[in-house]
Amino acid sequence: MSEPLKIGIAGLGTVGAALVHVLVSRYALLAEACGRPIEIVAVSARDRERNRGIDLRAMTWFDDPIELAKTGEIDVFVELIGGAADPALSAVEAALSRGIHVVTANKALLAKHGVRLAALAEEKGVLLNFEAAVAGGIPVIKAMRESLTGNRVSRLYGIMNGTANYILTTMEREGLSFEACLKEAQRLGYAEADPTFDIEGNDTAHKLAILTSLAFGTEIAADDIYLEGISNISIDDICAADDLGYRIKLLGVAQRTDSGIEQRVHPTMVPKDSVIGRVDGVTNAVAIESDVLGELIMSGPGAGGDATASAVMGDIADIAKSRPGIQHGPALGKPAAKLVPYKRAKMRSHEGGYFIRVTVQDKAGVFASIATHMAENTISLESIVQRAKHTSPAGSGRQTVVLVTHATTEASVRAAVQAMVADGYTIGAPQVIRIERPKAA
Amino acid sequence: MSEPLKIGIAGLGTVGAALVHVLVSRYALLAEACGRPIEIVAVSARDRERNRGIDLRAMTWFDDPIELAKTGEIDVFVELIGGAADPALSAVEAALSRGIHVVTANKALLAKHGVRLAALAEEKGVLLNFEAAVAGGIPVIKAMRESLTGNRVSRLYGIMNGTANYILTTMEREGLSFEACLKEAQRLGYAEADPTFDIEGNDTAHKLAILTSLAFGTEIAADDIYLEGISNISIDDICAADDLGYRIKLLGVAQRTDSGIEQRVHPTMVPKDSVIGRVDGVTNAVAIESDVLGELIMSGPGAGGDATASAVMGDIADIAKSRPGIQHGPALGKPAAKLVPYKRAKMRSHEGGYFIRVTVQDKAGVFASIATHMAENTISLESIVQRAKHTSPAGSGRQTVVLVTHATTEASVRAAVQAMVADGYTIGAPQVIRIERPKAA
Repeated sequence: MSEPLKIGIAGLGTVGAALVHVLVSRYALLAEACGRPIEIVAVSARDRERNRGIDLRAMTWFDDPIELAKTGEIDVFVELIGGAADPALSAVEAALSRGIHVVTANKALLAKHGVRLAALAEEKGVLLNFEAAVAGGIPVIKAMRESLTGNRVSRLYGIMNGTANYILTTMEREGLSFEACLKEAQRLGYAEADPTFDIEGNDTAHKLAILTSLAFGTEIAADDIYLEGISNISIDDICAADDLGYRIKLLGVAQRTDSGIEQRVHPTMVPKDSVIGRVDGVTNAVAIESDVLGELIMSGPGAGGDATASAVMGDIADIAKSRPGIQHGPALGKPAAKLVPYKRAKMRSHEGGYFIRVTVQDKAGVFASIATHMAENTISLESIVQRAKHTSPAGSGRQTVVLVTHATTEASVRAAVQAMVADGYTIGAPQVIRIERPKAA
Repeated sequence: MSEPLKIGIAGLGTVGAALVHVLVSRYALLAEACGRPIEIVAVSARDRERNRGIDLRAMTWFDDPIELAKTGEIDVFVELIGGAADPALSAVEAALSRGIHVVTANKALLAKHGVRLAALAEEKGVLLNFEAAVAGGIPVIKAMRESLTGNRVSRLYGIMNGTANYILTTMEREGLSFEACLKEAQRLGYAEADPTFDIEGNDTAHKLAILTSLAFGTEIAADDIYLEGISNISIDDICAADDLGYRIKLLGVAQRTDSGIEQRVHPTMVPKDSVIGRVDGVTNAVAIESDVLGELIMSGPGAGGDATASAVMGDIADIAKSRPGIQHGPALGKPAAKLVPYKRAKMRSHEGGYFIRVTVQDKAGVFASIATHMAENTISLESIVQRAKHTSPAGSGRQTVVLVTHATTEASVRAAVQAMVADGYTIGAPQVIRIERPKAA
């Protein structure tokens, strides 16, 4: 058996504490699989006194994670602090600069500084592993960086935020409003007190930005993502979707197009009977379409201390199994210097099907006008349903119309909706939800 | 850029030809990702003259794959010959013995000789990679061997044979008999002229045996698998399953129990609305339940030249990205010498739900007798349906009864069914299908 792999862990929140627990309790199992033991020699967190249910006495304590990263005692620095700023950034930089491998679960850090950090890791000949940063326990980084080597990805999409998916699933199952389900998610600890980051899609965007770089060999461009959250989704949308054979999910989608690469996060209608359409609650799922392999879909726990710790443990084990100092391959799939600038596809050029739900005055000619505006914008319809349920009780003088289009463009849909609104018969803002279909089998 | 990685490919069937094509056409892409080019320096196949649509002129031709494996010219020997016997076995042994990395898609070879070959690879400090041997393009070997390191697996199950799944899906969709759908699969090239290996579960068993070893750290025990094929599944079973909210899939299941490890391949009822229940046609899927990560499900193309070539390409790229001669970790997840003997759980002790379909004489007391035999064997019922559809037209003097049990044992079910048959009112053999449920979310 070789020398132990010595690791330092910065950040002892839910994930950090779970990681310490599994690394200690599976010491022998890991040593057998890796050919050498994994030893936690140092830790760092804000509060030394907090009871985390783990025994830290054998580990050197650092108040400052940057000091921990700089110690010559460790082979691997595990960053579980979070956030794109200091101390996480400086700590990771310090570790890499000293030729220490880094394992991180920090999506915000990678979304903002990933290319620079990958370049630094390459320069120093060390590994930068970040399986836990995207979709928790699902090994999607490994699949993209390793298994798909040599493939050309055409599209990837996924449910990458458990909070948003829990809320949407609960709305559907219980028939409750967004607000009520958000409260329930907060009560159960699935949503933060300030849920903005999860429900408005920012968290999904960070993860998507990392996957896009891996998929298309482009620089990470988290600020170039079209973003739309789920707070605007009503129970009426969910019921109408259900009637038409769809479910609504918050998807992150990246897709190669003729004019560039689309990156978008928005509520999306997916077919009910698709694999991605069956992903409920806090579970995550990612689908990757590539030209040699075909369509690969992975689903599993996207968050939680244990699942995230499992991904971090896998990253550490990968380092332990190699001899120290061995570079396996670049962190972002190809050398950081060879990543090409991200070219954003215009959202107006996005092609796909659309769901449009509009409440209108119940008077003669409205239906004909809607149909005309669709035709004027060369939008052909898959279905058109006049719905009286829920929002439009008889005698209310209003009606709800639900349209599902065949493939068209975002620009056409926007123009058609604008024309309807300009005609003055719409009540409230029309709801527009994009449809994403799995590749035909 | 470092020295090229030189590979030799033995076997130029569908997968071999697809592999040559992608390695040549993605030369630059692979070189960038791997840090060095991948060069095919030698090939071997039975017929040198056959037109495979690929240019082999730059490669040395070997009539004998064992001679190719022995050449000092290659760093990696890619075995795509197939079969557990020679020349595949001797060729792989020859390559490993000479310290040459091996990549293989050969499930039969690994199911029979995997432990010995893994030990040889370890002894020589080379890699034995076999992602393509199980579930085609799905990176399940990498997930189990690398991502799940440190986890304890409790159960894994999957759809690992595209032919069988295509036939079951077609029966369901078209309402046709097994025989008709098998013919259709043969016409489309999804089933072989002799389909026994696919439809009787042997192919699934080979793959399951490999996964079981990786999951539980046991020696590969392909001969210890309970095996039941799908040729006995009728359209009545499929309709009854559908009525009850299930679909029938040919699953391979491995599960840790108190008395040992179950390995079984049989037609299985899975809930219609589960992810695994949504896997149609030739697609494969594998679910893995482990204690730290939770439930991970992967689905994708389980066969076909390109998807399989993609998995082989990923295995080759893993070797190219390491420096030559570096051992990453043992082929079967832990050192071959540390694998424990497989302890077979008795099939009679299997616990789970059961579907029982029995045609009976339409006379007084039969129903009561069935219920009594269930009670005698302490089987409690989730549902009992008397079905007139399909097999039992009115006035035929017969009736079909469908029972779904709560969790019980195989021994109890067999005893109850035997008692019904002994009573003399059953017509034909009762159909018994095991139910497998995903872990509760």
